[in-house]
Amino acid sequence: MNGFGDKLAAAVAAKRNPVVVGLDPRWNSLPANLKTAAEGALGDRAAQAAAFTRFCKAIIDVVAPLVPAVKPQVAFFEELGPVGLESLAQVIAHARQKGLLVIVDAKRGDIGSTAEAYAAAYFGEQASWPSDALTISPYLGDDSLLPFVTAARNSDGGLFTLVKTSNPGGKQFQDLICDSQPLYRRVAAHVEKLAAEDAGTHRYGSVGAVVGATYPDQLAELRAAMPHAWFLIPGYGSQGGTAKDCAAGFDARGFGSVVNNSRGIIFAHSRREFARFGEARWEAAVEAATLDMIAALRAETPVGTLG
Amino acid sequence: MNGFGDKLAAAVAAKRNPVVVGLDPRWNSLPANLKTAAEGALGDRAAQAAAFTRFCKAIIDVVAPLVPAVKPQVAFFEELGPVGLESLAQVIAHARQKGLLVIVDAKRGDIGSTAEAYAAAYFGEQASWPSDALTISPYLGDDSLLPFVTAARNSDGGLFTLVKTSNPGGKQFQDLICDSQPLYRRVAAHVEKLAAEDAGTHRYGSVGAVVGATYPDQLAELRAAMPHAWFLIPGYGSQGGTAKDCAAGFDARGFGSVVNNSRGIIFAHSRREFARFGEARWEAAVEAATLDMIAALRAETPVGTLG
Repeated sequence: MNGFGDKLAAAVAAKRNPVVVGLDPRWNSLPANLKTAAEGALGDRAAQAAAFTRFCKAIIDVVAPLVPAVKPQVAFFEELGPVGLESLAQVIAHARQKGLLVIVDAKRGDIGSTAEAYAAAYFGEQASWPSDALTISPYLGDDSLLPFVTAARNSDGGLFTLVKTSNPGGKQFQDLICDSQPLYRRVAAHVEKLAAEDAGTHRYGSVGAVVGATYPDQLAELRAAMPHAWFLIPGYGSQGGTAKDCAAGFDARGFGSVVNNSRGIIFAHSRREFARFGEARWEAAVEAATLDMIAALRAETPVGTLG
Repeated sequence: MNGFGDKLAAAVAAKRNPVVVGLDPRWNSLPANLKTAAEGALGDRAAQAAAFTRFCKAIIDVVAPLVPAVKPQVAFFEELGPVGLESLAQVIAHARQKGLLVIVDAKRGDIGSTAEAYAAAYFGEQASWPSDALTISPYLGDDSLLPFVTAARNSDGGLFTLVKTSNPGGKQFQDLICDSQPLYRRVAAHVEKLAAEDAGTHRYGSVGAVVGATYPDQLAELRAAMPHAWFLIPGYGSQGGTAKDCAAGFDARGFGSVVNNSRGIIFAHSRREFARFGEARWEAAVEAATLDMIAALRAETPVGTLG
């Protein structure tokens, strides 16, 4: 074991797939049988947070044997206030206990000792939300990334830096041509430098990149430009990205990317393909949607070579 | 009253200065008499959070008659976990009760309904941390800013978007030349467009910019380029920015910028100039440092014209 780069490779190899299940507990989409305990949409935050915890733990129980990692989205927990963030801590602990890696999607970023404080919240066993990896934002530059890099490495943790995001508006600044290269390539070059610094036995380091499935050409371009960086690929499913769109994110061994799906898995009972389960059997829909995504990635990408 | 642009102008006019006191409760810098109740630096988080609350409330009591706004830095509260974020809620409530505007420094940023969830955490009286303004990060582009803009406007709240930050590494990406203009000018152009959309009777809209005091030339350039955007200026004091460095951030009436100082005020008892108070009289040092900064800005910038 040699830091997060190898840790993630081992988890992907063990499950023979790179699926990350995104834990985005949106109140309005929660299965009805989980909401009955919580009174009203604007009502009791503690009851809502308890419903979030039950929902996420149930998903974790279904997907833990199937996938290498989950990705809780902090925003939905944060919206509920301190009780929501207590729920997040319980969800993270449950996922790790079940052997899943936990990538916390927080997109944090700040400078100096402020960045250190954020990093301390998520890295290390003393942390409030002890995580395996964290998403961060690059706009503040190299000295803002460094405290996160240090804290991640000290705990065998990893980072995914926003490089080329999956949303339509992402191109507004990320695609601006800066001295003959798009901004995202400038950010990518810095991330690659950090990744190469502690590349493990599987070639990947602890600092990775967020690269959306919705821009397959840029995914191929960035895979070539960042040989040592793990990619976290959002945008699969509900945002329009397909397994084929993700193919260029992998190396020949099937490593190099993990692919996130949030709504398409956790609210699969709302999808036409899985409507047969009905809302009452939403956990069976989660399992079916996870297996469906694994199969699609194994069929359409080098992931099939994982054995 | 016409939204946050006017609200901030009224607050600055009422106090006749643009000083924002940054609430960055760093455990190691806290006055000793506040720490005695909390056991150990790595110890009881609830006790540490209680010390943060007492510390910030005491500062608020000192500065509420003097300045228009405070800026809690979420990272330091987040580091302590859910109990820290409960403290943040108490600090925000206390500041607003004392008539201060509260600018929450969170540098959040995400897309779609995820950004909506973050915005809902900070804007509106139902929010977990009901704030007057929030700092946000622009890397994800226009569609990521919009949910924050909508939520802010719906609650007469404001935003400060990272444009040109005060840290040395800020220039790494922000100063890249994109089609003949630095990236920060591209972000500035978008912020100015949003600011102009709801400019109030004092000319400023609800969407502002973070522009560091440590780059006075860019501050002047951006003041000219963004006539409708309030600036939140970090970097004063400990980071090296002076009152003179901030001068170009103001219009002739003394509006246009608010200037933050965190460590230089809240830990003033550690500064040579205010060592005469001693640690036991740290609140007197806070008051003296605040008055000192107000006087410097009134002497060296158009703030003196506020009357």
